[in-house]
Amino acid sequence: MNSVEAVDLKKSYLLLNHGPVTLVSSAHAGRTNVMAASWAMPLDLDPAKVVVVIDRQTLTRELIEASGEFVLNVPARAIAEQVLAVGSNSGRELDKFAAFGVRTAPASRVAAPLIEGCVGWLECRLIPEAHNQQRYDLLIGEVLAAWADPRVFRKGRWSFPDDSLRTLHYVAGGSFFATGEMFDVA
Amino acid sequence: MNSVEAVDLKKSYLLLNHGPVTLVSSAHAGRTNVMAASWAMPLDLDPAKVVVVIDRQTLTRELIEASGEFVLNVPARAIAEQVLAVGSNSGRELDKFAAFGVRTAPASRVAAPLIEGCVGWLECRLIPEAHNQQRYDLLIGEVLAAWADPRVFRKGRWSFPDDSLRTLHYVAGGSFFATGEMFDVA
Repeated sequence: MNSVEAVDLKKSYLLLNHGPVTLVSSAHAGRTNVMAASWAMPLDLDPAKVVVVIDRQTLTRELIEASGEFVLNVPARAIAEQVLAVGSNSGRELDKFAAFGVRTAPASRVAAPLIEGCVGWLECRLIPEAHNQQRYDLLIGEVLAAWADPRVFRKGRWSFPDDSLRTLHYVAGGSFFATGEMFDVA
Repeated sequence: MNSVEAVDLKKSYLLLNHGPVTLVSSAHAGRTNVMAASWAMPLDLDPAKVVVVIDRQTLTRELIEASGEFVLNVPARAIAEQVLAVGSNSGRELDKFAAFGVRTAPASRVAAPLIEGCVGWLECRLIPEAHNQQRYDLLIGEVLAAWADPRVFRKGRWSFPDDSLRTLHYVAGGSFFATGEMFDVA
């Protein structure tokens, strides 16, 4: 695992604010899974919360609702192939970690793992909201801990020293945008 | 207004899938407003739905809840200064359209206007969910009509012929990322 630095929870929304694709990792009772989710974003600053859409038919959904926990991982371009692969296959049919060489490290507050090759990580507990989950597949989480790769996110600021470390924005059908040029408006 | 083309509702999520910042326009009883929202994303494909976080103290929130309607506009880099300005000022204190030279065109299904200089537009009706609105400032909308600037989004595919037409991803404090390079994973 690359070196990681703790991110102040009140600044953890910055890991998602620009709308990157995420990997959602989950674990319960000895089963672990990872999937891709484009529909994830911050919901609140303090306490930090997130929302993510997770289809009810997925193993990820089952594991999150059973454990009450998940991690939102923010992948870098270097693992774009893995992002597509874990987003295109079901954990009910294969072990995606073994099948696609997805490596993990332990999280600090939840059983779900941190995914290597990512540059940001938000460890979350599910805030149960049965109506949202059942009607909209919408899950709300409170961020319990957050981490970033200090090469790209440090003291609340992004920088990309290398294109392989850029975050990703999913388009469709195997196409992504890399996060592009940063600029300031006066 | 640039030429616009209708977007099939089932493909309208593609206007938001990559996580761009949005402008939220609203209107009710002769009052009209526009603000910036980074926390907006698709929620469902068919019928197309979106979620957006709108603080309860904003005029936008008041106009949306009174009218039951809003538009999510996807701005291009050419109007980044306007995006920052309408995101940093309250419609309770000034007419942001006049103050910042924000031009509009009529929408087709809602009273809220389409914002010029954007490249995508989603006309929405609010799906009332009192608990989400009151507890989380989270609003759910059904997409009634969608439009795109055909120079950048056509038949479900993005392309950016000019950097000034790239969509934006908000960072913080006046900083944005432009949407970057598109690439395909095999």
